[in-house]
Amino acid sequence: MKRRLAIPLTHPRYESLRLREMLVEQYETGVVATAGLIAHGRGEAFDYLLGETLIPPAMSAIKMAAASIVIAEHPVISVNGNLAALAAREVAELSRVADMDVEVNLFYRSQDRELAIKQVLGEAGVKRILGVGNDASKQIPELGSERRRVDPRGILSADLVLVPLEDGDRTEALRRMGKKVIAVDLNPLSRTSVSASISIVGNIVLVMPTLIDEVKAIEQSPREKLNAMVDRFDNRKNLEECIRLIAHRLLDLRLQDQKLPKYLEAAD
Amino acid sequence: MKRRLAIPLTHPRYESLRLREMLVEQYETGVVATAGLIAHGRGEAFDYLLGETLIPPAMSAIKMAAASIVIAEHPVISVNGNLAALAAREVAELSRVADMDVEVNLFYRSQDRELAIKQVLGEAGVKRILGVGNDASKQIPELGSERRRVDPRGILSADLVLVPLEDGDRTEALRRMGKKVIAVDLNPLSRTSVSASISIVGNIVLVMPTLIDEVKAIEQSPREKLNAMVDRFDNRKNLEECIRLIAHRLLDLRLQDQKLPKYLEAAD
Repeated sequence: MKRRLAIPLTHPRYESLRLREMLVEQYETGVVATAGLIAHGRGEAFDYLLGETLIPPAMSAIKMAAASIVIAEHPVISVNGNLAALAAREVAELSRVADMDVEVNLFYRSQDRELAIKQVLGEAGVKRILGVGNDASKQIPELGSERRRVDPRGILSADLVLVPLEDGDRTEALRRMGKKVIAVDLNPLSRTSVSASISIVGNIVLVMPTLIDEVKAIEQSPREKLNAMVDRFDNRKNLEECIRLIAHRLLDLRLQDQKLPKYLEAAD
Repeated sequence: MKRRLAIPLTHPRYESLRLREMLVEQYETGVVATAGLIAHGRGEAFDYLLGETLIPPAMSAIKMAAASIVIAEHPVISVNGNLAALAAREVAELSRVADMDVEVNLFYRSQDRELAIKQVLGEAGVKRILGVGNDASKQIPELGSERRRVDPRGILSADLVLVPLEDGDRTEALRRMGKKVIAVDLNPLSRTSVSASISIVGNIVLVMPTLIDEVKAIEQSPREKLNAMVDRFDNRKNLEECIRLIAHRLLDLRLQDQKLPKYLEAAD
């Protein structure tokens, strides 16, 4: 069931529909799971409420994330289907710039999906891809069966894990293992956002390039300065700012005045 | 790729995951479109922000919808894949109770999907299903190719169309044709919500049974009373109440106090 949307560039929802198309394409190649499509829809709704932009608290969280990555001993990027579909090239660049390992780590694990994701990452320039097949030989305690398997060279021995578009169970399990967890999640209320060390509330396609720039900008900064900055960060306070910002945007809307919001295109 | 979630009844997100499972099952039978999965995800996010309940302005809109259906000459229910997956039995009951025609009307039209939806509706007890195949012989002006086809016995000659989970283009086109349009949409900001005559902002599985009860409760009421009630209704004002309600719920959240919200389960 291949169906291209063939979105006109002038469409008011062009950018949002383009991402949706990328996701559906990678669904057809087996990279994205069915649940990943539904999760993307949730993300679209929150992105819309955020104004489809990087809001100030997200910018603060990105700065903290960059500092944390620079000072980490062994930072790892955890890649799932949606991330591979939407930002494989950015994963490759961040891993190069910040010297991060890249590990495929799926909620719905299957060898076909792992290999499909490995291929997308490889084509995007990721040299070494951990966590595929029997490489994921170790277990995260307390996580269900297949989801708990990790690569001893990657997530298991990492002190920091970047988990874009991840689920709450895994985030909480990684935190219990004492790891610093950086989440990228459009929903500031999700269990992932609430339980991560640093939650970046923003669209992955905006967050990744900004995070890469930020790592480049601060990688020569004194470590004490970065440490002090990271220590001051209060993730829940930052999330509350995101929530308040959404609420105030909603209160400012006036449908009666014909100042209509941009549309959420809702195809059935 | 059949995968049952096998959700434990004790799961904090049981009801939400059950609906998701129904949708994925009907995706596999061809009833639900790929875009329908993403649209469902958007709905989940808004439902979550509404507290996953029928909020007071939604209850008002349901009363207005019931009154409008009772006084309509020829009311029709427009059925798409997501509606068939989530509320086929309620479609059957509403059509019986309110004497409404039922027409299959798809954004992504294909004969396989139409027939799959027809089967689901038939099994749920809908006796006469319009709009399938060559029955959809007439066109809604200004809508793209396949999307514009409607049944002359159904939507084309209707004075009122109930369009649950519909897209904005179609809602606007039906309005331009002078029809009363009742939308059911969890997003109070969508083009569908803003352009419908009456927008019910709520989850379809809560809205449909309540609408059926409401029709039964008022079907014997004097028509002048119902007319007067419907005339007083201001849809945009009602939508603004929904939006304010979401905003105030968000402002009341305090992550710092550990009074955490219920979770949005975000599987990758």
